Amino acid sequence: MSVIVLGSMAFDKIETPFGKTDKIVGGAATYIAWSASNFTRPIQQISVVGADFPPEELSVLEARGVLLEGVQVNKEKKSFFWHGRYHLDMNTRDTLETQLNALGDFVPVVPPSYQGADILMLGNLAPAVQLSVVEQLTERPKLIVLDTMNFWMETAMPDLEKVLKKVDILLVNDSEARQLSGQYSLVRAAREIMKMGPKRLIIKKGEHGALLFQEDHVFFAPALPIDEVFDPTGAGDSFAGGFVGYLDSTKDFSFDGLKSAIIIGSAIASFCVEKFGTTRLRELTRQDIDKRIRQFIELVNFDIALV
Amino acid sequence: MSVIVLGSMAFDKIETPFGKTDKIVGGAATYIAWSASNFTRPIQQISVVGADFPPEELSVLEARGVLLEGVQVNKEKKSFFWHGRYHLDMNTRDTLETQLNALGDFVPVVPPSYQGADILMLGNLAPAVQLSVVEQLTERPKLIVLDTMNFWMETAMPDLEKVLKKVDILLVNDSEARQLSGQYSLVRAAREIMKMGPKRLIIKKGEHGALLFQEDHVFFAPALPIDEVFDPTGAGDSFAGGFVGYLDSTKDFSFDGLKSAIIIGSAIASFCVEKFGTTRLRELTRQDIDKRIRQFIELVNFDIALV
Repeated sequence: MSVIVLGSMAFDKIETPFGKTDKIVGGAATYIAWSASNFTRPIQQISVVGADFPPEELSVLEARGVLLEGVQVNKEKKSFFWHGRYHLDMNTRDTLETQLNALGDFVPVVPPSYQGADILMLGNLAPAVQLSVVEQLTERPKLIVLDTMNFWMETAMPDLEKVLKKVDILLVNDSEARQLSGQYSLVRAAREIMKMGPKRLIIKKGEHGALLFQEDHVFFAPALPIDEVFDPTGAGDSFAGGFVGYLDSTKDFSFDGLKSAIIIGSAIASFCVEKFGTTRLRELTRQDIDKRIRQFIELVNFDIALV
Repeated sequence: MSVIVLGSMAFDKIETPFGKTDKIVGGAATYIAWSASNFTRPIQQISVVGADFPPEELSVLEARGVLLEGVQVNKEKKSFFWHGRYHLDMNTRDTLETQLNALGDFVPVVPPSYQGADILMLGNLAPAVQLSVVEQLTERPKLIVLDTMNFWMETAMPDLEKVLKKVDILLVNDSEARQLSGQYSLVRAAREIMKMGPKRLIIKKGEHGALLFQEDHVFFAPALPIDEVFDPTGAGDSFAGGFVGYLDSTKDFSFDGLKSAIIIGSAIASFCVEKFGTTRLRELTRQDIDKRIRQFIELVNFDIALV
């Protein structure tokens, strides 16, 4: 069992209505690795950090079964940095500052030892970087999952179109699905996007849950209603990490298998938002996770006698 | 088995991105009656219409098992009229014109034959009118369900507070729940609202489904993802109608019973939005409804092995 994870490892500075942080460790690949390693090991990480990235952060990931051979350390630069502020609704945010730093000239290199992985998780990065990793794999993984964002649709659409043709599942949020497809209805958006390459599509709707589309099938996973979302940063990446980690443990890539994996992803994301950054993800036990999955089952379970 | 339904019977003029109507028959009690009569009869209607309300509209309702003894005909006035235009997102709308007409001085009278009903559905009207119906019932129904809207929170809060103390279930949408409670988090909003009287709360989130709260229990019913919402008018009332109609047929007012009824309400609402006004509701067969409920089951059904 193994999953390759591509994505940023970085610093975030976060302001929410509930408080603010100094620079804390974040980045898509960080959240994905913390989440996926609850279900499968090793996680084969591909990323780049700067000279300022704390070595102890790498050590704790290694202790979780995260292989770092594919993580470059650029000693001449700092790590990627994002500073953002969430609005009162916690669904929208302003970017106050972005420093690409080491990520600016990142050329990913897939270590030979990573070849043969079953799943490739392409975290949100420039589509050209994502494509490069796909092309370096001598054997196509059984499942390639792609995360992307509106920024790349606006600035790198030709590259994004190429990556889309190479992947099995696309993960986007509802506004990105609408932007990518030019359709307001999510059902129509899904139909258009599945013509672009991926045979399956997951549309994340934040506090409104997530939809899975495959051919004419739809599955809806709710988000757990939470007293107060404390920090949404990394929720989408935690979802992705739980999703691919669980799939790597079951190897069931059928529609039913994906449904279960989406519930797992939603459960992990529901933990992520309870504290700043990766704090909550670091504390999770398998018992915590199972308890939360029971809550999901209770949340949507119903029984109707049909005539 | 019987349900009393209070609400408007009226004319609507509707503009959506897909087209527009002349004056067509609408009103909360109309949608509720059409929806509830799929599951239970009689529906004991309490409303007022003007001289202009088409007698054949009353006849088709009677043929559906809707009793009209409590529907006053004010020969000196016209029926309530609403003219609205939906925005492109179909979730927001502008009211272009409202004529209260016969509804302006409506004093509801509960016919003696309606006494003893199991369920009272208070459709959206002035809280004082809703309260009057509750107070005219010699025997308290087993279940009283209240629909209301932000307008009454702004203009008639003292009356609304009185009605809230008398009902078992409140139905509102998410922005109304936030307004009523002063809480952004829907979990906290629910907690506050349940202190105001109703022991159960249903928060309708339109295309994002509905939440049921009771004590610490939460149930989430998805909305069926639909290709294109054609006309959202009456969706909330169709939901309410399916909900109370089904409950009157099962008499299971437990949390599990309510869960099933919410799925039924969601199914009926998903039909309502497919065509203008009540058009789609008039064509429904029990087979159509069962087929759609199967889609809901498929939509949320998942299976996870817990360790």
